[in-house]
Amino acid sequence: MQRGSLYIIAAPSGAGKTSLVSALIQQTEHICVSVSHTTRAPRPGEENGKAYFFVSHEAFQAMQAQQAFLEQAQVFDNHYGTSKAWVSSQLEQGIDVILEIDWQGGRQVREQLPESIGIFILPPSRMELDKRLRGRGQDSEEIIARRMRDAISEMSHHAEFDYLLINDEFDQALLDLQHIIYSQRLRHARQAANMGEKLEALLHS
Amino acid sequence: MQRGSLYIIAAPSGAGKTSLVSALIQQTEHICVSVSHTTRAPRPGEENGKAYFFVSHEAFQAMQAQQAFLEQAQVFDNHYGTSKAWVSSQLEQGIDVILEIDWQGGRQVREQLPESIGIFILPPSRMELDKRLRGRGQDSEEIIARRMRDAISEMSHHAEFDYLLINDEFDQALLDLQHIIYSQRLRHARQAANMGEKLEALLHS
Repeated sequence: MQRGSLYIIAAPSGAGKTSLVSALIQQTEHICVSVSHTTRAPRPGEENGKAYFFVSHEAFQAMQAQQAFLEQAQVFDNHYGTSKAWVSSQLEQGIDVILEIDWQGGRQVREQLPESIGIFILPPSRMELDKRLRGRGQDSEEIIARRMRDAISEMSHHAEFDYLLINDEFDQALLDLQHIIYSQRLRHARQAANMGEKLEALLHS
Repeated sequence: MQRGSLYIIAAPSGAGKTSLVSALIQQTEHICVSVSHTTRAPRPGEENGKAYFFVSHEAFQAMQAQQAFLEQAQVFDNHYGTSKAWVSSQLEQGIDVILEIDWQGGRQVREQLPESIGIFILPPSRMELDKRLRGRGQDSEEIIARRMRDAISEMSHHAEFDYLLINDEFDQALLDLQHIIYSQRLRHARQAANMGEKLEALLHS
């Protein structure tokens, strides 16, 4: 059985990461987006284990104490974390796992799993990024300026990633992403595991 | 200007390496097969600089003394070598270079250029390999047995390569090869070089 690969996909807001990853998942077999643990309350209709595993603050702290997380972050009063055990179980089933996290989470993951593959997605230009961050034009200039500062701050870490994608045309960026996933499955360790006894039979008889 | 990548492609006889590489080159831009230096005499119609650079034994030895080769091998009385300067000039022009060499040459190259990418091509099974090595059925069992021993010896080094391809269906193996080349061009260093000032403009303004 070939082991899956772990991908860290990061991008500034406005790069189109979520849409790209969602299209990738729909069109590719044996790949999934990581399901994080969170202390935030489920919203109406949110199912446990679907987008998140909903846990109490106590349960989250217990997992922290056991170093059960690959990476974790706090957003306002809520904690979010990626469970090592959950990711491992997917990888062991031969499923690739995508972590949609920021550069800080990426760094935490790489420290524990240096074999993970980092992909950074960029918008094609500052002008296009500005347009995307303005969205439907209902936000104040101040809010847009803050989004831009956050985006520039995130982008400043692009060089920590293995691959760099430019999301200019969505279909092209999706094709790029698909090529990375496909070629990773041709890497020696995965192919050799996949061939299994067929490889043995070729080399010895 | 983005720098090209150097590929080491190795395989036992019968794996279909030459046909695959030839189809790849025809269908892909900015990629070439390395042109080796050799002391063997040109055959009628062979043009200097096309498949080989034809040089005298003295000239070859002078290049050896200058450590001008990335890798070299001797076949009977003839010497073959890949010129570092030639490979570098292609890479600097943004052209990917393929070295079709054996595992020994691959090892020499990796010692000097650890960033080179190794691809090993396998036949799908021993039975299929046997069939391919028999070719048109005009060779003795002894010759075929020697080819098989050589093939097994070459295959025993598969784990020294980054990627492993199985040439079962030609078109599938070609697609695999194309995906590796394509995804390599998305690696951070190449994309960042390719974007050049556009990347700067995104990050600072």
